[in-house]
Amino acid sequence: MSWSAGDAAPQPAAPQAGLLQGHEDNYDGLIVDDFEAPPGTAAEFADALQGSLAAWRDKGYRGIWLKLPTTRAHYVGHAVDAGFDFHHAEQDYVMLTTWLPTDCENKLPPNASHQVGVGAFVLNERREVLVVQEKSGPLRGKGVWKMPTGLVQQGEDVTEAAEREVLEETGVRARFDAVLAMRQAHGFAWGKSDMFFVVALKLEPGPQVLQMQEDELVGVRWMPLEEYFAEPFTAARPLFKQIHAACRAYANGTYRGLHGRKLETGFSARQDLLLFGEAADRAGADEEGGQDAWIGLDAAGAGAAGGGAAGNT
Amino acid sequence: MSWSAGDAAPQPAAPQAGLLQGHEDNYDGLIVDDFEAPPGTAAEFADALQGSLAAWRDKGYRGIWLKLPTTRAHYVGHAVDAGFDFHHAEQDYVMLTTWLPTDCENKLPPNASHQVGVGAFVLNERREVLVVQEKSGPLRGKGVWKMPTGLVQQGEDVTEAAEREVLEETGVRARFDAVLAMRQAHGFAWGKSDMFFVVALKLEPGPQVLQMQEDELVGVRWMPLEEYFAEPFTAARPLFKQIHAACRAYANGTYRGLHGRKLETGFSARQDLLLFGEAADRAGADEEGGQDAWIGLDAAGAGAAGGGAAGNT
Repeated sequence: MSWSAGDAAPQPAAPQAGLLQGHEDNYDGLIVDDFEAPPGTAAEFADALQGSLAAWRDKGYRGIWLKLPTTRAHYVGHAVDAGFDFHHAEQDYVMLTTWLPTDCENKLPPNASHQVGVGAFVLNERREVLVVQEKSGPLRGKGVWKMPTGLVQQGEDVTEAAEREVLEETGVRARFDAVLAMRQAHGFAWGKSDMFFVVALKLEPGPQVLQMQEDELVGVRWMPLEEYFAEPFTAARPLFKQIHAACRAYANGTYRGLHGRKLETGFSARQDLLLFGEAADRAGADEEGGQDAWIGLDAAGAGAAGGGAAGNT
Repeated sequence: MSWSAGDAAPQPAAPQAGLLQGHEDNYDGLIVDDFEAPPGTAAEFADALQGSLAAWRDKGYRGIWLKLPTTRAHYVGHAVDAGFDFHHAEQDYVMLTTWLPTDCENKLPPNASHQVGVGAFVLNERREVLVVQEKSGPLRGKGVWKMPTGLVQQGEDVTEAAEREVLEETGVRARFDAVLAMRQAHGFAWGKSDMFFVVALKLEPGPQVLQMQEDELVGVRWMPLEEYFAEPFTAARPLFKQIHAACRAYANGTYRGLHGRKLETGFSARQDLLLFGEAADRAGADEEGGQDAWIGLDAAGAGAAGGGAAGNT
């Protein structure tokens, strides 16, 4: 598998009269995504597509990407008639693909496969955990207290998502400290997989007032840590027990999990979130001379952490 | 955010003559996904959809999910005309949605947001790293040696994906040992985000013969560790340097990253992959009495690891 996301400026293909225009990608494919111009009717589109497919085959293109906006939704049936399959869709368009070579398998990359979620473990100075009860979903009416959870939004780091969800659901201001565990699971909504990060947040200084998100919750409270771990819903389930073992170690100061930093990738000006453990962490920070920002740890916090966990580099 | 994936058996809604049939979900919504039966023509579908929408509004449904298979691709335009947006698509269907309430915001969960990738750090007994050169993609023709990478396939654990990619690309048999780092980044292919796991694999015992995947690669070799770290392409980039710091610590035996176990969730018979650090790891294993399988670590390996990293529980 060599398709690497985050690619590269597409190359314009030379235009030909009466045919659909596209841009070449890095994989000998063509992206057809400009429907500002005619052909206007669905029947005209169907004709243009037939002619284009013949021309694209002659040119040796492999994968064809056809991006139809909602304004061209009546083209979709004709694209399928011409041999296209659906690839993915977002709110305002559907992407269809077809693979032209007959002598090798379809190498087009799959659609996004995972949703990413976060759960936030927030302790106060009385060793109480921040917990909520949900109004809908599979736990509706079951009386289960759970840590605040939510889905990572498009373009959002898991660290940011955890802070946002806690603030939205409970009114509590807290900042990312460490990743305690991750769970990958399959066969979720619409067949997708789910990557769930259990994240420890540190309360911001100052008074904190609980404010429940009325839309989604029926309860929010601080719950004594041992009472939380003893909840029957989770206490009997191995996966939850293991997550709680990480939370317990964190609460006892014996486990810090993974830190996070935003680091320059060297591709454009992008900075990406990197999560990694303590030993490499200190080594990396020393090499960098501290030029990149620590996430959710001030200098004092980072220093204190160094004593708690691993690290004999 | 309270939509939690992996839900729940839908409830059949009471059928009404002439209207599209659906199943209720856990969120006061309706899923319309059975087009085995008539209406047959696109025009008949458009009529049935209009009547159905009125009935669904009267009943107080919120989100409507309309799943059209490729065999009904000519319905798509009519669904958009009736107010539906695209939500997502897979190869053989497109899912459209509409939100009926006018007094509150659209609460439908987003489409899958991430692709998940793996990179595999494999060392041999001579302190050489397994590296490849890719035939296509952004590194084409640049002569860069990199660790084998690839996308996680639908339903596949990151641990399995790393083992599979290494075997497919290089012929080398190796097993998951630990996660060294994770990188989250945004704005990749089709606007999706990317979660990339850097995973250490341990060579399986016995002779290993390099076998290059001709389709995707132009080179595969074992490269001295320090030569690999010194590659100009990566040595100047903070994100890569930090990842290499984790790899270096791992190679030196001072960093084990995160372990993995398959654990019962207690929902159906599902076992999910959980990744977590050393301190919680030992505590969890002790509590479990070893009933769940360790991934990629035999008992001896797990014991030896205990000395290398964190963990004063």
